[in-house]
Amino acid sequence: MGAQIRIGIAGYGNLGRGVEAAIQKNPDMELVGVFSRRNPEDVHTAQPATTVYAWNELPEFQDKIDVLILCGGSKSDLPEQGPELAALFNTVDSFDTHARIPEYYAAVDAPARAANKTALISCGWDPGMFSINRIIGEAIVPDGDTYTFWGRGLSQGHSDAVRRVDGVAAGVQYTLPSEKAIEEVRSGTRPELATRDKHVRECFVVLEEGADQAAVEEAIVTMPDYFADYDTTVNFITQEELERDHQAMPHGGFVIRSGQTSPDTNQVVEYRLALESNPEFTASVLTTYARAVHRLAQAGDHGAKTVFDIAPGLLSIKTPEQLRAEDL
Amino acid sequence: MGAQIRIGIAGYGNLGRGVEAAIQKNPDMELVGVFSRRNPEDVHTAQPATTVYAWNELPEFQDKIDVLILCGGSKSDLPEQGPELAALFNTVDSFDTHARIPEYYAAVDAPARAANKTALISCGWDPGMFSINRIIGEAIVPDGDTYTFWGRGLSQGHSDAVRRVDGVAAGVQYTLPSEKAIEEVRSGTRPELATRDKHVRECFVVLEEGADQAAVEEAIVTMPDYFADYDTTVNFITQEELERDHQAMPHGGFVIRSGQTSPDTNQVVEYRLALESNPEFTASVLTTYARAVHRLAQAGDHGAKTVFDIAPGLLSIKTPEQLRAEDL
Repeated sequence: MGAQIRIGIAGYGNLGRGVEAAIQKNPDMELVGVFSRRNPEDVHTAQPATTVYAWNELPEFQDKIDVLILCGGSKSDLPEQGPELAALFNTVDSFDTHARIPEYYAAVDAPARAANKTALISCGWDPGMFSINRIIGEAIVPDGDTYTFWGRGLSQGHSDAVRRVDGVAAGVQYTLPSEKAIEEVRSGTRPELATRDKHVRECFVVLEEGADQAAVEEAIVTMPDYFADYDTTVNFITQEELERDHQAMPHGGFVIRSGQTSPDTNQVVEYRLALESNPEFTASVLTTYARAVHRLAQAGDHGAKTVFDIAPGLLSIKTPEQLRAEDL
Repeated sequence: MGAQIRIGIAGYGNLGRGVEAAIQKNPDMELVGVFSRRNPEDVHTAQPATTVYAWNELPEFQDKIDVLILCGGSKSDLPEQGPELAALFNTVDSFDTHARIPEYYAAVDAPARAANKTALISCGWDPGMFSINRIIGEAIVPDGDTYTFWGRGLSQGHSDAVRRVDGVAAGVQYTLPSEKAIEEVRSGTRPELATRDKHVRECFVVLEEGADQAAVEEAIVTMPDYFADYDTTVNFITQEELERDHQAMPHGGFVIRSGQTSPDTNQVVEYRLALESNPEFTASVLTTYARAVHRLAQAGDHGAKTVFDIAPGLLSIKTPEQLRAEDL
């Protein structure tokens, strides 16, 4: 193995923390440091050995970092940071506002090309691993339908909605794929399913003292837009149970491609993620793709990229010869 | 869309027939013809419009075929045909003798490079889609274990073993993944499992007249190497049932990667195929990869390739812009 790939982390929330952990699992990588807009002294990293730098020190690290992993949010951080940092570094980010991807791609591509940098955008699992499975499934079973199911996962928006109900002290909401819908899809019958047919909702609620349990349940399950159209269950728990059992950030889901290669010959391709930590898994995917970005940059393949542009072999720590001998 | 991709089929058995069907599903492709070592008049194609040529006419088609899909077997056809035809055409094949892949790769790479051709070897689902999922799973969850399960699928070798038992008139054997083992793997506990722990065997047997059913069952389930170490069930059926229910060639299986991104945080990635026709699905994958081979050849990227070298976007009929806008 040659020199290690030198990684920088730009932004230190759940995702940045996940990248810090993932680098420990990849012996061909080393962490140069975390860059934060907060006062570095106020940033407490999970690994004691991690150095924290101020955000404005980033330009001085151009020759010390091979790939910078951008761990900011898609709403306001990345639209600004992505194009700016792609002019200075090879980058990987998890921009996930699906509708704005073409615009973001163009905004990152121009500065990256001008600076001979490689910038992978919209990486993670959706967009990311799910996207790859959508297009490969579509390509290998062209006469078919693609179904994406999400969950079991914590939904922030729906948890907020539950907490706004009168009488609710605290609560969380999980979105789950409907077992019935998954079985229908797996059967190869290619059902037409709306998002609401594919998912069920599960709430865990802590009541305020003296609140009317039946009224709270009724208010939740009939709430328009959020719950009324779904099969929703409400579980009442104590504050202690909430703290003990509902602090993790699980997520995942399925991408299923179902179709026919000849009349009456069903072929079903299924990809499934069951994640106990959504941010740690996403971070792990970003870190893996940093290896591919480093290799593309070294090969002179610059500009904005997506997971669609990355050959699987580029992700592996193994050489092409090893992969062919051991994994094909 | 530009001109259509002109495909040739070299060899017309189940796989060649599958490619013929797959081309119908891909509007950017056209079938130039089938090339057979048999007398072309004796080859009856599924599509009446398909032209059959003699094998020795192949060299005359160098300028008329963009990608030749090799549909011969791995044992004796491909070791000879792969290197020979890679000197004349861009090719795709399904060479699946895992242990001999490095040797075959080298044998195809040299003539392909010398002739500026692109030759994708060992494509299909295992090797192929399963291989991709093995290496991506390994890369994104480096601290983990990979489990491959095969089935429910017809096993030729085990069906032959069943038919050799005294008193058996006819029969087939299916290999199935063990539900118990799959559940263990999905739980994230990373169990150590031998192939025999991961699979169960199911036989469907037609008895000869007057045969002793109990003796036949005992002979099968205790047969060393083939069945003794497995959980085996034997079902007795009539010749009519065999012909009605057991003529298809189903197959499939699972690749599961299970590991931890931090202590006690399990992440499970699962890829599953449920195929009603193994040869049709394999053919469909080969046909899709012919599109990528055509694109690589046009870009001047020559030599032997494997599925590890192919970026997902190259498989799709859509443009990169479309893919980013619609599928990411």
